[in-house]
Amino acid sequence: MNKHEKYIQRCIELAKNGLGTTYPNPMVGSVIVYNDTIIGEGWHKKAGQAHAEVNAIASVKDKSLLAKATIYVSLEPCSHFGKTPPCSDLIVNTKIPNVVIGTVDPNVKVAGNGIKKLVENGINVTVGILEKECNELNKRFFTFHQKKRPFIILKWAQSRDGFLAPLQKEITAPVWLTSDHSRQLVHKWRTEEQAILVGAQTVLDDNPKLNARDWFGLQPTRVVIDPNNRVLTSNAVLNDQQKTIVFTRNQNLPNTENTTYVTIDFDQNSVAQMMQHLYEQELQSVIIEGGRHTLQAFIDCGIWDEARIFTSKTQLGNGIKAPSFPYFSSTEEQIATDQLVIVNNHDSIDSI
Amino acid sequence: MNKHEKYIQRCIELAKNGLGTTYPNPMVGSVIVYNDTIIGEGWHKKAGQAHAEVNAIASVKDKSLLAKATIYVSLEPCSHFGKTPPCSDLIVNTKIPNVVIGTVDPNVKVAGNGIKKLVENGINVTVGILEKECNELNKRFFTFHQKKRPFIILKWAQSRDGFLAPLQKEITAPVWLTSDHSRQLVHKWRTEEQAILVGAQTVLDDNPKLNARDWFGLQPTRVVIDPNNRVLTSNAVLNDQQKTIVFTRNQNLPNTENTTYVTIDFDQNSVAQMMQHLYEQELQSVIIEGGRHTLQAFIDCGIWDEARIFTSKTQLGNGIKAPSFPYFSSTEEQIATDQLVIVNNHDSIDSI
Repeated sequence: MNKHEKYIQRCIELAKNGLGTTYPNPMVGSVIVYNDTIIGEGWHKKAGQAHAEVNAIASVKDKSLLAKATIYVSLEPCSHFGKTPPCSDLIVNTKIPNVVIGTVDPNVKVAGNGIKKLVENGINVTVGILEKECNELNKRFFTFHQKKRPFIILKWAQSRDGFLAPLQKEITAPVWLTSDHSRQLVHKWRTEEQAILVGAQTVLDDNPKLNARDWFGLQPTRVVIDPNNRVLTSNAVLNDQQKTIVFTRNQNLPNTENTTYVTIDFDQNSVAQMMQHLYEQELQSVIIEGGRHTLQAFIDCGIWDEARIFTSKTQLGNGIKAPSFPYFSSTEEQIATDQLVIVNNHDSIDSI
Repeated sequence: MNKHEKYIQRCIELAKNGLGTTYPNPMVGSVIVYNDTIIGEGWHKKAGQAHAEVNAIASVKDKSLLAKATIYVSLEPCSHFGKTPPCSDLIVNTKIPNVVIGTVDPNVKVAGNGIKKLVENGINVTVGILEKECNELNKRFFTFHQKKRPFIILKWAQSRDGFLAPLQKEITAPVWLTSDHSRQLVHKWRTEEQAILVGAQTVLDDNPKLNARDWFGLQPTRVVIDPNNRVLTSNAVLNDQQKTIVFTRNQNLPNTENTTYVTIDFDQNSVAQMMQHLYEQELQSVIIEGGRHTLQAFIDCGIWDEARIFTSKTQLGNGIKAPSFPYFSSTEEQIATDQLVIVNNHDSIDSI
């Protein structure tokens, strides 16, 4: 790891403090370096508040050093007037002569313009340091802008023998397969995403609150897929205590203060239609917590980005089978100048 | 790695000497151990010739040690009369008191009967040492018997920017993207599999011989998918110098000495029908070397076991795109008593 990478790595570390609170903005971290020493640091905390570069510059005690310093920032500085003035202008005005940028902003309002403005003002600009890591940091923000849909996380817990739950007729209360630690981690995840989605069957089976109780943070917008309005007003998800979107086949259902009904044509591309709506609502990410039918629908149409699968030590013997997707493993080697990848298909099917 | 594993590992090493020459038999290796010293070794070289256990026993100089020895064998000793007498009888007759077996034979003629015979004769039998590795060793044999189709290997070479070849109209001879070393490796692979398959377009474009020239070994049966009989008798694959199967839509085409025409209904499950035919011909493995359309057909129906993909340093700019399948990567961690796997979908699609 060279010097540039070391400082951009620190920017990423700082940026991550903002996970869950910067929406609709990306997470950004910045450090200011003079004479191989960090003299200022900052990160973006919340939309409407100061950007990472502003916080980093403000944290420098001896401002006279700025004229000889380098500012590192994980994402291209903005060039437009949003809720705050453009950071590229600030950098120009503070006369910092060198800027090192992790990755370019995919947001059409910025995309390259921030860099252009810096270069036009005689600043040395280096772009593309730990680019992959900087993109990964803002996978939600990038997916949202590039694919025009939320970043989609599938989450489920399964027994050691691959079941989500016992058969419904055998149980009276939700069965927790996994440990308290895993449960707490799931609540943390709920504070990190903008929306949480389940199907109607999960609401009827488990009556979940779909909020974060075991971790401090913002509450996600609840989303329920309920084509035939089977969810009851007595179910927790309709308690109006959190923003809730219900996707339904029916038209003209009356919204309440926090609950909105959205009509979907469930006969074609329903996943795409629903994700299109979340995009229009500027929800950059959604965690899908079940049940089997809902998770499998996203898998089958290939519209998902990440799956987080807990496997507990418990065995159930039988029950509702966990979702499945093709599982491949691969190895890499070098043959002279060529790269050879061998992929194994662990779910290859029989011919007949 | 414990003592048993060490000796079974050696059995696997020995067995691999038979890759490509033991069909329709599996590869098997055997070692005989007395007083923690290997006193005999053997492997199965060719169907009809001695099995691994026979070779291992024959290699022991002081036969009196056998009565106090342990025989290790990577696959359950056979119990039936094939081209040679049953190995389980031989072990009983030589009075070797201990047998350690890597994995059970999936062949219905053997499956557990070899072990049964040994146990009934008072021999100590241990089963399931490096079972996964022993199964992997005979992935072709196991897939053939369990899935009733050949083990299917997809192979292609692509440019750094993901193309198989330039557009046909721009070229007059096949373009080799990869190095001589990779080419030689491919010829080695051709000696390891029982069949090699291409589509008609590849024959028309490249006129390949589909034999192994840069490596010594047996020649595979050539298989060509040619629904509309576009391949010409002047094409190398129809030169009758190697066994060749042509899958066609047409009926009653005249076979020649080494070339057989097989009629397929290309309107439904053609991949399954073709693989069914190779199964009936007792071809335990097939390597599919193109082109794009053929490779993608196997990928799209999920009937494949392994893909071997060369990526060269060459860039083509444009051309025929390489086949694609969903690409996932994953990480694992432990959360208290639960295992958490996070899978990333590198080919997630846009919503719309």
